[in-house]
Amino acid sequence: MRRALELAALGPAVGDHARVGAVILSPTGDVLAEGWHKGAGTPHAEVDAMAKVPTEQLRGATAVVTLEPCNHVGRTGPCALALIEAGIGRVVYAVDDPGEQARGGADRLRAAGVDVVSGVLADEAEAFLERWLLSVRTGRPWVTVKWASSLDGRAAAADGTSKWITGAAARQHVHEQRAAHDAILVGTGTVLADDPSLTARGDAGELLADQPLPAVLGDRPVPDDAAVRRHPRGLLALPGHDLDAALRTLRGHGVHSVLVEGGPTVASALIAAGLVDEVLVYLAPVLLGGPRVAIGDVGVGSIGGRHQLDVTSTTTLGPDLLVRARPHRTRTGTDRSAHRATPTGAAADQAQNDRSTP
Amino acid sequence: MRRALELAALGPAVGDHARVGAVILSPTGDVLAEGWHKGAGTPHAEVDAMAKVPTEQLRGATAVVTLEPCNHVGRTGPCALALIEAGIGRVVYAVDDPGEQARGGADRLRAAGVDVVSGVLADEAEAFLERWLLSVRTGRPWVTVKWASSLDGRAAAADGTSKWITGAAARQHVHEQRAAHDAILVGTGTVLADDPSLTARGDAGELLADQPLPAVLGDRPVPDDAAVRRHPRGLLALPGHDLDAALRTLRGHGVHSVLVEGGPTVASALIAAGLVDEVLVYLAPVLLGGPRVAIGDVGVGSIGGRHQLDVTSTTTLGPDLLVRARPHRTRTGTDRSAHRATPTGAAADQAQNDRSTP
Ligand SMILES: NC(=O)c1ccc[n+]([C@@H]2O[C@H](COP(=O)([O-])OP(=O)(O)OC[C@H]3O[C@@H](n4cnc5c(N)ncnc54)[C@H](OP(=O)(O)O)[C@@H]3O)[C@@H](O)[C@H]2O)c1
Ligand SMILES: NC(=O)c1ccc[n+]([C@@H]2O[C@H](COP(=O)([O-])OP(=O)(O)OC[C@H]3O[C@@H](n4cnc5c(N)ncnc54)[C@H](OP(=O)(O)O)[C@@H]3O)[C@@H](O)[C@H]2O)c1
Repeated sequence: MRRALELAALGPAVGDHARVGAVILSPTGDVLAEGWHKGAGTPHAEVDAMAKVPTEQLRGATAVVTLEPCNHVGRTGPCALALIEAGIGRVVYAVDDPGEQARGGADRLRAAGVDVVSGVLADEAEAFLERWLLSVRTGRPWVTVKWASSLDGRAAAADGTSKWITGAAARQHVHEQRAAHDAILVGTGTVLADDPSLTARGDAGELLADQPLPAVLGDRPVPDDAAVRRHPRGLLALPGHDLDAALRTLRGHGVHSVLVEGGPTVASALIAAGLVDEVLVYLAPVLLGGPRVAIGDVGVGSIGGRHQLDVTSTTTLGPDLLVRARPHRTRTGTDRSAHRATPTGAAADQAQNDRSTP
Repeated sequence: MRRALELAALGPAVGDHARVGAVILSPTGDVLAEGWHKGAGTPHAEVDAMAKVPTEQLRGATAVVTLEPCNHVGRTGPCALALIEAGIGRVVYAVDDPGEQARGGADRLRAAGVDVVSGVLADEAEAFLERWLLSVRTGRPWVTVKWASSLDGRAAAADGTSKWITGAAARQHVHEQRAAHDAILVGTGTVLADDPSLTARGDAGELLADQPLPAVLGDRPVPDDAAVRRHPRGLLALPGHDLDAALRTLRGHGVHSVLVEGGPTVASALIAAGLVDEVLVYLAPVLLGGPRVAIGDVGVGSIGGRHQLDVTSTTTLGPDLLVRARPHRTRTGTDRSAHRATPTGAAADQAQNDRSTP
C-alpha cells in the first residue's frame, strides 16, 4: 500500500480527478505491475496496472489500490467489474470512495466472491486525498484562504499602499500555491483595486505549467482591460454574494480546490460562513497600525465564538513567516467552521461524482 | 574572554548593574583567579577576582574583563586605579564602558604604563550586555513591548472579552519575561479594565524570586483596591502621557529594562515614538475579526513609513506562536525606531552612570 501511495503521487496534482495508485501482486506476493491515474479521461489506477499483466496471470492475483475501486461507468467503465472479470482474487484498498455513484465497488466485489480488505494505511491515504475527498463529500471545493499582513494584522498602510509588504520568497510561495490549486477566487474589490493577473508564475515571471482557473466574485463588472481577462484559462465571473452558490459553480467547472486570495471582504465572509479548510497567513515583520485590517468581521461577537485553528506549520520565507493553520479538530470531529457542506452538496455531487469527469 | 563571559552570566540577570566577568592570568598564562559582579553595591568583577590572588602574584599579571574597567568612584572605587596599584601588567577587555563618568578607564591604564587590548569578543559581549549598554548610552531603559493577539491581530473579541486568547505555556512564558525585566509598564486603561497583579509567578501561581517594579502610565488614578497595589515591589505611578519622561523616571529608579504589557494605546504610542527595542508577539491560532486590534495607530500613513522589524526567533508555545522581533538594522546602523535616546539622555546618564548604583 505504501508503494501504491507513492504511485498515486505520480499523477497530476491538480485537475478534476483523484490521484490513485495500484499494485498487482501474484498469489505468492510478487509484484506483477504498477499503475496510477494520470488524470481525467485516462484509465483508473487499477485498470492501468492490470493492462500491464498477461490476462492469465491476473486470475487469483491481488490488487492493492489506494481508493476503493469504483462502481459506475465513467469514461472508463466500473473498475469493480473489470477486477471481477479479470478473476482478481483479492482487493486491498485504503479509503472508501465517497462518490454517490462511484461508491459500492467493495460490495460488488464481495458479492462476486472477491476477498476485500479495506482501511489499510487509511489515515495516510485520507490525508493524501483530503482535498478531493472533501470536495466529493461536501459538494464544494476545498477552500484555502491566503492573506498577507503585517505582524499586527494589517493588509496595507492607512492610505491603502501595500506594495511589497511581504518579500520575494513569500510572493514566489504564493505562485506555487496558485499552481497547486484548481482555481483562484478574489472579490471584485481586489480586481478593481489591484488589477491582478491571477496567473501562477515562476521566479523569472514565466507562466508555470499548471494554471488555476481565475474566478471573480461580486456584482461589479470586471473591466474589459483588466489583466485577469488575459488569463490563459479565461475568466469565470461569479456575480452575487452567495458563497455557497459560487463554490458550487466552481465545483461544476471541475474545481476540487480553490485558493482564495482576498480581499478582506471575501476572505472574512468565507471565514464567517465556516467555509474554510486551510488558511495561509504570510506575516511580514512590519508594524503598520491603522484601519486597513487584513481580516474584517468574521462574525465573532464574544470570545466563546472565536474561530479556533490548529497551526500545522510555521515556515520562514526570507524575512517573512508563513503560518499554515486549519479549523481546530475536536476529539469528536471538526468544529462548526470545518468541512461544512453546501446546502445542495448531494445534488452537486450527483452531477459531479465521477472522479475523472472533466 | 569566553570564560570571562561565562563568569559574567553568573551575576543576577536583573537589577541596577552590568553583568561583568573577569579572569586573572599569570605571566605564563595560568588562571590565577576568576571573578564576577554580583550586583549593585558589591565589588566589580576585576576587583572580585583580584581579591582571590596574593598581592605579589598580581604584579605583571593579565586581567581579562568583559567590560572596560571603570574610571570613577562608585561604591567600589575606580577599578582602573585598583588594577594600576596592584601592578597588573596587561588588561584585555571586550566592550568600552559607555558611562559618562565611568568611561576612560582604558586611557587611565595606558597612561600608567599598563598594556591595554580592547574589542576582544566584542560582538558577543555587546550582545550579552545589550540592555544595560542601551540604557547607559541612551539614558532610558531597554523597552520590550509584549502583546497577545489572534492570528488576525485582535486582542479581544468585539465585546471586549479576551480571557485565555493564548494558552498556559504562553502565559507562563510571559511570567518568565516579567522576571527577566527590571520593571513592567502598563497604561491606566489596562489596570482599570483587567486589574492585573503584574507579579511574576510560577506554574503553581507562586511568586518568582525576581519581581519587576510595576509602573502605571496615565492620569486616571489607580483604585485603592487595585491588585497591583499589593505588589511586593510597591507601585510606581507615572502620571501624564510623556513617554520619554516616564522612561527617564524609570531609569531614575534603577530600571535598565522594562516590559511593556499594554494595552494597545500605550504599546502603540511607544512604537509610534520609536522607543521600542524588542517586540514579543504571542499569536494564538484563532481568528476574531472586529474592532479590538492589539495595536492601534503607530503613526504610519503610507507603506514607506512602516516600522520594519527583523524576526529574531519563532517559538511554539503549546498551540500558540511567539514571534520575537527587533527594529530592522540597516547596513549603516539602526532605523529611526531603534535606540532613540530620550531628549535628556545625557543628563539622565550623568545622574545614573554608575553601573552599580541602586
Ligand atoms: N493582503 C492581502 O493578502 C490582500 C489580498 C487581496 C487584496 N488585498 C487588498 O484588499 C483590497 C480590496 O478589498 P475588498 O475587501 O474590497 O476586496 P474583495 O474582498 O476582493 O472584494 C469585495 C467585494 O466582493 C464582492 N462580494 C462577493 N461576495 C461577497 C460576500 N459574500 N460578502 C461581501 N462582498 C462580497 C462585493 O463586490 P460587489 O459590490 O461587486 O458585489 C465586495 O465589494 C485591495 O486594496 C487589495 O489590495 C489584500
Ligand atoms: N492582548 C494583550 O496583550 C493586552 C495587554 C494588555 C491589555 N489588553 C487589553 O487592553 C485594554 C485596555 O486598552 P487601553 O489601550 O485602554 O490600555 P492602556 O494602553 O493600558 O491604557 C491607555 C491609557 O494610558 C494612558 N496613557 C499614558 N501615556 C499615554 C500616551 N502617550 N498616549 C496615550 N495614552 C497614554 C491614558 O490614560 P489616562 O487617560 O489615564 O491618562 C490612556 O487612556 C483592556 O481591555 C485589556 O484587556 C490587552
